[in-house]
Amino acid sequence: MKSSNVTRVPHLIDQTERWRRQEHRGGVLWLTGLPASGKSTLAYGLESRLFDAGYEVYAFDSARLRQGLNADLGYSREDRRENIRRAGELAAVMARAGLVVITGFISPYAKDRAEARAAAGENFHEIYLSAPLEICEARDTRGRYRQARAGEIKDFTGIDAPYEVPATPEQILGTATLSVEDCLDQLAVYTDQHFRNF
Amino acid sequence: MKSSNVTRVPHLIDQTERWRRQEHRGGVLWLTGLPASGKSTLAYGLESRLFDAGYEVYAFDSARLRQGLNADLGYSREDRRENIRRAGELAAVMARAGLVVITGFISPYAKDRAEARAAAGENFHEIYLSAPLEICEARDTRGRYRQARAGEIKDFTGIDAPYEVPATPEQILGTATLSVEDCLDQLAVYTDQHFRNF
Repeated sequence: MKSSNVTRVPHLIDQTERWRRQEHRGGVLWLTGLPASGKSTLAYGLESRLFDAGYEVYAFDSARLRQGLNADLGYSREDRRENIRRAGELAAVMARAGLVVITGFISPYAKDRAEARAAAGENFHEIYLSAPLEICEARDTRGRYRQARAGEIKDFTGIDAPYEVPATPEQILGTATLSVEDCLDQLAVYTDQHFRNF
Repeated sequence: MKSSNVTRVPHLIDQTERWRRQEHRGGVLWLTGLPASGKSTLAYGLESRLFDAGYEVYAFDSARLRQGLNADLGYSREDRRENIRRAGELAAVMARAGLVVITGFISPYAKDRAEARAAAGENFHEIYLSAPLEICEARDTRGRYRQARAGEIKDFTGIDAPYEVPATPEQILGTATLSVEDCLDQLAVYTDQHFRNF
């Protein structure tokens, strides 16, 4: 850590004060899975669901972050690590502000996901969107599998870069078989169970 | 921008929906000024005030960000620029989530502050904490002026690095003469005027 010459001014608002007023915890729902496994669809769909249910909620995905905070990063192993590190720190800050933060990132490396979990400190929920590569590739929502197969994109997760399946995620959703609505129903119930209980 | 290979999934929640429910806009109150001009004290003090007044609000300062998102950055010109760039992007994301975001950063360069303003897009308010160097140095809240004078810290704003006074800030507070309470009163009134009006 280069930034050592700093002191911390304590927050004057206790975290539980925020929770009490909004009637739910802050925390992170971290969606991980292969490209085209449904992360962004579910993240923004869930954001809308939870908002309607009265939650303070915000969703962001890799595409969005790469247009702002992470616009300086590419797709090398090091840049991917930094992409996830910053996403994890951003989610952690927003969770401390009381929000339910929903993130959609491939986040293929277990080590990087563990760092995002550590940044949040608590109320971090790893949600694995499980779908076979063949299904995701057939879907190819953004045409990127095709580009990867054609060699136009390098280091594409699932093709020429690894995806490390989560060993102990808090929840697994079979997004190849469940409908979007069914996934959102499960996620909404899960959120109520874990964020309304304090 | 290296991150070009991305598409945007539209947000399903209209920004004004958030504002309507919480009864205020989201946006950024960007506090800038010399070291020991009162930024962190006012940022966290105002956060507490606004929370009690019913706002969705969050404050962060450079010290806090350098323990997380910006822990990899030092104090070179380039690292300072990146420190402010990320702070601006973070504030912008949180403002889009509906929060009143209060930031406390020296942010000595006008160009960097202009970038933070551009990231937020709208509802960005530059608040200049105006206090003579002599007063700030006499205060020396964290003992860093002394260290800078002793040569233990390099590129310290006001000593051996410049502070570019804001040319057209939205508000100026004379923190050398006003009490903390008076400053907070003015900031709270300012916030009500600019964030409750929609």
